[in-house]
Amino acid sequence: MTAVAIIMGSQSDWETMRHAAETLTALDVTSETRIVSAHRTPERLFAFARGAKAEGFKVIIAGAGGAAHLPGMTASLTELPVLGVPIESKALAGLDSLYSIVQMPAGIPVGTLAIGKAGAINAALLAASVLALNDPALASRLAAWRKRQTDAVSERPEGSA
Amino acid sequence: MTAVAIIMGSQSDWETMRHAAETLTALDVTSETRIVSAHRTPERLFAFARGAKAEGFKVIIAGAGGAAHLPGMTASLTELPVLGVPIESKALAGLDSLYSIVQMPAGIPVGTLAIGKAGAINAALLAASVLALNDPALASRLAAWRKRQTDAVSERPEGSA
Amino acid sequence: MTAVAIIMGSQSDWETMRHAAETLTALDVTSETRIVSAHRTPERLFAFARGAKAEGFKVIIAGAGGAAHLPGMTASLTELPVLGVPIESKALAGLDSLYSIVQMPAGIPVGTLAIGKAGAINAALLAASVLALNDPALASRLAAWRKRQTDAVSERPEGSA
Amino acid sequence: MTAVAIIMGSQSDWETMRHAAETLTALDVTSETRIVSAHRTPERLFAFARGAKAEGFKVIIAGAGGAAHLPGMTASLTELPVLGVPIESKALAGLDSLYSIVQMPAGIPVGTLAIGKAGAINAALLAASVLALNDPALASRLAAWRKRQTDAVSERPEGSA
Amino acid sequence: MTAVAIIMGSQSDWETMRHAAETLTALDVTSETRIVSAHRTPERLFAFARGAKAEGFKVIIAGAGGAAHLPGMTASLTELPVLGVPIESKALAGLDSLYSIVQMPAGIPVGTLAIGKAGAINAALLAASVLALNDPALASRLAAWRKRQTDAVSERPEGSA
Amino acid sequence: MTAVAIIMGSQSDWETMRHAAETLTALDVTSETRIVSAHRTPERLFAFARGAKAEGFKVIIAGAGGAAHLPGMTASLTELPVLGVPIESKALAGLDSLYSIVQMPAGIPVGTLAIGKAGAINAALLAASVLALNDPALASRLAAWRKRQTDAVSERPEGSA
Amino acid sequence: MTAVAIIMGSQSDWETMRHAAETLTALDVTSETRIVSAHRTPERLFAFARGAKAEGFKVIIAGAGGAAHLPGMTASLTELPVLGVPIESKALAGLDSLYSIVQMPAGIPVGTLAIGKAGAINAALLAASVLALNDPALASRLAAWRKRQTDAVSERPEGSA
Amino acid sequence: MTAVAIIMGSQSDWETMRHAAETLTALDVTSETRIVSAHRTPERLFAFARGAKAEGFKVIIAGAGGAAHLPGMTASLTELPVLGVPIESKALAGLDSLYSIVQMPAGIPVGTLAIGKAGAINAALLAASVLALNDPALASRLAAWRKRQTDAVSERPEGSA
Repeated sequence: MTAVAIIMGSQSDWETMRHAAETLTALDVTSETRIVSAHRTPERLFAFARGAKAEGFKVIIAGAGGAAHLPGMTASLTELPVLGVPIESKALAGLDSLYSIVQMPAGIPVGTLAIGKAGAINAALLAASVLALNDPALASRLAAWRKRQTDAVSERPEGSA
Repeated sequence: MTAVAIIMGSQSDWETMRHAAETLTALDVTSETRIVSAHRTPERLFAFARGAKAEGFKVIIAGAGGAAHLPGMTASLTELPVLGVPIESKALAGLDSLYSIVQMPAGIPVGTLAIGKAGAINAALLAASVLALNDPALASRLAAWRKRQTDAVSERPEGSA
Repeated sequence: MTAVAIIMGSQSDWETMRHAAETLTALDVTSETRIVSAHRTPERLFAFARGAKAEGFKVIIAGAGGAAHLPGMTASLTELPVLGVPIESKALAGLDSLYSIVQMPAGIPVGTLAIGKAGAINAALLAASVLALNDPALASRLAAWRKRQTDAVSERPEGSA
Repeated sequence: MTAVAIIMGSQSDWETMRHAAETLTALDVTSETRIVSAHRTPERLFAFARGAKAEGFKVIIAGAGGAAHLPGMTASLTELPVLGVPIESKALAGLDSLYSIVQMPAGIPVGTLAIGKAGAINAALLAASVLALNDPALASRLAAWRKRQTDAVSERPEGSA
Repeated sequence: MTAVAIIMGSQSDWETMRHAAETLTALDVTSETRIVSAHRTPERLFAFARGAKAEGFKVIIAGAGGAAHLPGMTASLTELPVLGVPIESKALAGLDSLYSIVQMPAGIPVGTLAIGKAGAINAALLAASVLALNDPALASRLAAWRKRQTDAVSERPEGSA
Repeated sequence: MTAVAIIMGSQSDWETMRHAAETLTALDVTSETRIVSAHRTPERLFAFARGAKAEGFKVIIAGAGGAAHLPGMTASLTELPVLGVPIESKALAGLDSLYSIVQMPAGIPVGTLAIGKAGAINAALLAASVLALNDPALASRLAAWRKRQTDAVSERPEGSA
Repeated sequence: MTAVAIIMGSQSDWETMRHAAETLTALDVTSETRIVSAHRTPERLFAFARGAKAEGFKVIIAGAGGAAHLPGMTASLTELPVLGVPIESKALAGLDSLYSIVQMPAGIPVGTLAIGKAGAINAALLAASVLALNDPALASRLAAWRKRQTDAVSERPEGSA
Repeated sequence: MTAVAIIMGSQSDWETMRHAAETLTALDVTSETRIVSAHRTPERLFAFARGAKAEGFKVIIAGAGGAAHLPGMTASLTELPVLGVPIESKALAGLDSLYSIVQMPAGIPVGTLAIGKAGAINAALLAASVLALNDPALASRLAAWRKRQTDAVSERPEGSA
């Protein structure tokens, strides 16, 4: 069974969302990547979201831009945790994506991460922390990942006197 | 057959969307009002939008607030013209609603009107202008409505010297 | 008779608005393209908008940027449906265009699409859906176009594992 | 001949624009107040703006809210100086009004003042300063008005220790 | 052991955050509520976040307003999943809170919910969906809650014809 | 005597403000260009603004970016009409410049134009329209300029079918 | 000698700025409060700012709203540290005040605090921390104030279970 | 003893923050530069901020971007004056950084400077002005720096006629 589904609205979102896939791989968490367009393939969205639990997914990461309906609509169709990544849009720099994902009405939650690449990486980390609640080995890998991150911070900026 | 479907995400949207219904009534255009929540009743949304054309609707007016997915998801499920009304939201004053409705990706259009009451009235007027393309009697009523609107504008503001 | 008039405020808007023209052509909908500047050619605007119905146009698509008055002023001068496309502006990224087009007062509607190219394409699709209400052949072409769009969405992003 | 025309889009704008009228009265500058709706009375707008110079007006003050097209369209139809006052709108607090008025394209200027009451007062003061260029008596009254304003500023806030 | 910690920056946040507590109670999920101010009690923040896992918490919900540092700083000090609720602030309506919570850099995730009450409710629901991954009874209660929510949506707005 | 003073906060503003100078030259209106920094040369600002009327200037055009205090402070020190041009800033795209210039309190007006180059051109045109009130020859040149502008608008966009 | 000058643009700012005065009093730091309007009393501004150091002031706190030029202009006229408080404005909620104060160009700094009452209190605290660098007694009082603040944070929100 | 600590969240902030270091050097003020990440190295943050006074620092300059918690968290852990520099972020151009730094709650002040390079330079100048309160030699150097800045402003823009 694959732990995390990574879905996105279009091919162009892959440039951002691949960072979620790569981060999960680095943590040895299985994931599967699919294009599911809320607007161009609504039936695929319904079929995917309604079936995600039965497919064995535990967490869904959904990335979308502009009038970004994919994360919220997925959340309306499953009780699995859904994490949303606002893709940086052309004109409004991802502000439209952010509002469309985060401002969900009471009743249907989407855990929203930062706009763009940082959000994609963090969606993977948050999914891993959720899975780690019942996977001590993953918890150890996540702790090690976090420790390496801390250790990698230099004392002084390169280039300073 | 009812010409226009007016849908909205929740009871609280009615305070805004009733202006669409009243404007259509004033123009003698038949309409039907339903609550269809993209997030709380996604199946109802699918059933409604997929069946709207067969039900005989010609135009759909959809009002929603916050992460407002109803207009766009309806448009993804029907080829009928869909008009969106951004409901004024509490924290962000409807800016989230506006972005979530208007910033649709290429391929699935939503004709978006102003935030709030003015948008609801104008959605009705735009729907009427669409229907009037093939209904000369409605075209006459619309023209008369517009003329009355023009005639009602005073020359000078009440209260000025 | 030409079904759709595509008007825009200046030559520089053509780069965006040609996507409306091309989309209509792909759907075999006749259109005509004109420059009508609300600010530099107000008389042309008046003559065009007042005469559009008599010229045989059914729908008007108007693109404009910045203090974008063309769609709203056109709508004030005709009872035909007017669809507005906010052109991406230099400093404010089209937010000024969007507000100037979508925030019309009650009484004069403009169906507003997304900022930029997506909005231009969608204005054409929305115009087609309006015309298709009384043109079964166009309805079929539009349905086919939508089906091709759906079919063109890949299952997985290119580049993913 | 009346020096300044004060126009506004609707009766509801009077609450803001009366401050322009009152300020001109205080400076003994003649003004005339009219409702001219760009959207509901476009012919009146054309007739007014095209005839404003012949009527003897020297400066036009135009207040409008939301998709505020009145100042810009007036400016497109006259070579008189046009000053714009963004009326505070309900949802977007006048930001839509401001963008719609100030972001005019090169070629047609509107001198824009602050949102709301302060803008209305300042439009009157700016109009007066324009007229004072060739009216030494008005220049004196304006200087006196400014001096009184300066003198009225207390040294310390009432209520401070 | 208590499953969810609900922390907030000040007493005034309780009016919003109590909705998270009440929603968890309705789902029969144990929670504990504390005031932890990132700015006024940084030691308490450190102690709480460093010890949260050992205390037995599984998920942390953190609400904060303005320069809202509590969710992100908590996330930097624990590997537990942290969910953030932007409290509606006075001047900027929670936009400052939202940006301060959601725009976390790559490496430290905060799953962010909507501004205000809806966000508090949804943080609870998202926490429940995380816990339900390994608690079938909770999964059933959550499914029932969702079903009741769906069933509670009326067909037509009260007050419509 | 020179009719128009064009002042700006720094050398880097010249790239924008030269369009004001060139437009005035095209209209045969005399102008003089100076750097006056509100922040780095406050004494020069005081001396300039206090002396501008005596120097014979009729209108002052002031361009500034960021926390743009030059137009407003100039206006506080002279009764001449002051027109403000918000320079496009790096991070906030001129929105900071716009707010700093247009949101003047009641009592001290600045007629504000669009952000950037369009605003610089329009400041020149508005200054010319002010001067033309008492200069029939300039009024004719301005009318001719406007007519040429109108005549230069093509009927159809180059590149359209 | 009085340590801190608190200046503000108008009487109406006192409602906000009195919190700065009260906080300084609580810390036993001497302060003096004056109205200095950049726009209505520019000479007073010049005289005050040029003479502030000679008057014995060490830090200046300046509050202003809208196109808030007072803090920046004061900073351009003195080498004393200037702290700015953006007053919450009516239409734009203090965003215009914030941008006008914080976005100072390189060369003239204003240390800017939060919009409104919190900013006024914090300006006082920051001024005190500056003065405490050379006043051990004040440093002790400030530390005690901070400790009381920390101690006053309850463990649990009043009203929680 | 080093007078000023310059800290920043990551290596990438150095490109901005080096302007603070260079400006202090130009004023002959000693400074030390460190990377302290609030999110990746929270212990380092605690240790640094708690120890900064004992290390002999007088003023702390902290630069951070996005959900920028470094300046505020540092301020919560020290009574030294903390100055914040919002780093320009990718998607939101530093607006998220600005809000996260400036909107601190009452009780913990951060003196915030402009977004980006100008803010870094001004943080250094403001720190210098604080230190100059008790260092007449530095006060003289700062005055000389300011005078050179004033003298360097040309009378006319290069390139003007």
